[in-house]
Amino acid sequence: MRRGGDDILIPVAAMTPFACRMIGAMGAPAPIAEEVGRHLVEADLMGVYSHGCVRLAQYADWLSQGMFDPSGSARILKVPGARTIIDGGDGFGVPAMRLAVEAGLEEAITGPGVSAIGVRNTGHTGRLGAFVEQAAENNCFCMIFGGGTGPGWPQVVPHGGAKGRLPTNPYAIGLPGGAHGPVVLDFATATGSGGKVYAAQYAGHRLAPGLCVDATGAPTTNPQDYFDGGALLPMAGAKGYGMALVAELIGGALLGEARSGMNWIVLAVHMAGFQTPELYRTLAEDILARIRDCPPAPGFDGVEIPGERERETLARHRETGLPIPAQTLASIRDWAEKLGVDTREIDHASEQPLPRAPAKHRV
Amino acid sequence: MRRGGDDILIPVAAMTPFACRMIGAMGAPAPIAEEVGRHLVEADLMGVYSHGCVRLAQYADWLSQGMFDPSGSARILKVPGARTIIDGGDGFGVPAMRLAVEAGLEEAITGPGVSAIGVRNTGHTGRLGAFVEQAAENNCFCMIFGGGTGPGWPQVVPHGGAKGRLPTNPYAIGLPGGAHGPVVLDFATATGSGGKVYAAQYAGHRLAPGLCVDATGAPTTNPQDYFDGGALLPMAGAKGYGMALVAELIGGALLGEARSGMNWIVLAVHMAGFQTPELYRTLAEDILARIRDCPPAPGFDGVEIPGERERETLARHRETGLPIPAQTLASIRDWAEKLGVDTREIDHASEQPLPRAPAKHRV
Repeated sequence: MRRGGDDILIPVAAMTPFACRMIGAMGAPAPIAEEVGRHLVEADLMGVYSHGCVRLAQYADWLSQGMFDPSGSARILKVPGARTIIDGGDGFGVPAMRLAVEAGLEEAITGPGVSAIGVRNTGHTGRLGAFVEQAAENNCFCMIFGGGTGPGWPQVVPHGGAKGRLPTNPYAIGLPGGAHGPVVLDFATATGSGGKVYAAQYAGHRLAPGLCVDATGAPTTNPQDYFDGGALLPMAGAKGYGMALVAELIGGALLGEARSGMNWIVLAVHMAGFQTPELYRTLAEDILARIRDCPPAPGFDGVEIPGERERETLARHRETGLPIPAQTLASIRDWAEKLGVDTREIDHASEQPLPRAPAKHRV
Repeated sequence: MRRGGDDILIPVAAMTPFACRMIGAMGAPAPIAEEVGRHLVEADLMGVYSHGCVRLAQYADWLSQGMFDPSGSARILKVPGARTIIDGGDGFGVPAMRLAVEAGLEEAITGPGVSAIGVRNTGHTGRLGAFVEQAAENNCFCMIFGGGTGPGWPQVVPHGGAKGRLPTNPYAIGLPGGAHGPVVLDFATATGSGGKVYAAQYAGHRLAPGLCVDATGAPTTNPQDYFDGGALLPMAGAKGYGMALVAELIGGALLGEARSGMNWIVLAVHMAGFQTPELYRTLAEDILARIRDCPPAPGFDGVEIPGERERETLARHRETGLPIPAQTLASIRDWAEKLGVDTREIDHASEQPLPRAPAKHRV
């Protein structure tokens, strides 16, 4: 998402404890509050604003509707002869997904070299890219996808259909890269994520064209139309629809009916079973260098390697602070007041905005 | 691909032995000729024309350029502590991919429940959907993807780039469905497959808009522009580009430098480790029924479940014969004559076209 001129820059040192306290005030035990708060701040630091602190307001909203149990905690279920399942206890999803990736990495690295872990009964799992990047840093290829909440979240029209029937059912894929760290994909199978609609709505922005249809199936750029019976379009037509459907069958049939949020599968392959890390890195860097070297198309600065922009943005935002749209910040403050959370740290920051680095042109 | 009015209907009983003899005449041992010929005919029967008998001409063309070894045969390489690799012997790729899927299914079903098999040094692997469907019929989730031939086949522009840098690097995903058989996806990460360009070129058709750019980066519908320095566009912009890049790293770095064709990974998960087949089928059919029930968008007859159209088309074409565009058939005949293959069976068929079932409207 492009940031407009109405962004407030909040120092990391102010936003992190505030976010953790706000998650805690929702009812999360301290270690969960700490983990989820830091996860959201990191997403904003990386420029993945749709999965950043805007979710503080959204989680509070969902909680007010009883959509998850803020005190629920994740645990590992191991049944002999069956695959490992992480039960999220209907709580915050970030700790459940971390547990799944850790279990998957252990199985892949110390066990048969490949693993498949299921995740059930969990709330919003945050920025999936964080987990596949963790796997890549441990020399694993990792893929996470899920779904199963179609009846409750019919956000996306199937290809050829006029009404929402599927969630945005995202996929994240990570693997080691070359000289500049892991390659990380994290995308919704809709033309954009539901998070982008929420973020635009909170920030008072318009949607990108081609993202949504309204309740009649007509294209729209007004985020409110989505909430008034509209739907998202699948990415790449039949292909994105197919990927969403596969994720829906995995989440809603292979892992049983989804209770609180989506159900997920985490696949991991220890790459040492195929290739030495050294030769892999050399060959990977050859491929990536050839891509970086591609002449840019009109309107682009150059070709990006997925995952690199986020790491560059992280480094920049650690200096400048997190840019949060004024309207998003107002929503967060409203919910903080309802939850009795002291907003002094972020109020102070918004009175004294930090100098801002010039935004690089991105499409 | 939509079939035009210039199609010739060839009975299966004529095309199958002809296709097998033609592959044999290229230098394939009898069992490989039989397997590859039948595989191509089945693709046409299923309506996947880009991966059907049009490839008889393409394989002959590639062979005339020394691009693969028609006598090469696939074998399993097992090194203790490492993952299983199928070496394709630089030959036809269909037998190599079948061997990989069989090895992967055995490992997943009788072993740890999950498997990852590599495939190297192999020619064109045919219709990947056939292999993931085979896995799904054995109660496995299966995903196949690959790449690694970017330097030799820079067919697709990376998102934001002006020049071809990546192959079409396809993904196929299969898993069991509900009442009507497996769900099968098989797609290129470009907006369309290179096979569609070849098929349009052989058949004298135009390309769908949005598929290709010419050598200057401008959109085109002329398939010749692709061969004259143009490129395909990635599906879904940055998302399809990212998937293609992941497949390129798997094929060209994890599995080493690609020699004759792409290198592949075959991931399989035995679904019994998560769910009973009975409950899975019931829950899956609930999901699929809700999708089938979706009101159609303007211009569509209804929403399709991926894999079902192909099976319906297979049943219909077994009765009517395979529709082959006249120009494609002429190319196949030219190559058959060069290879000294008797074309009487297909000549006879083209003089006496069979009555044709009305084509259903598909988009």
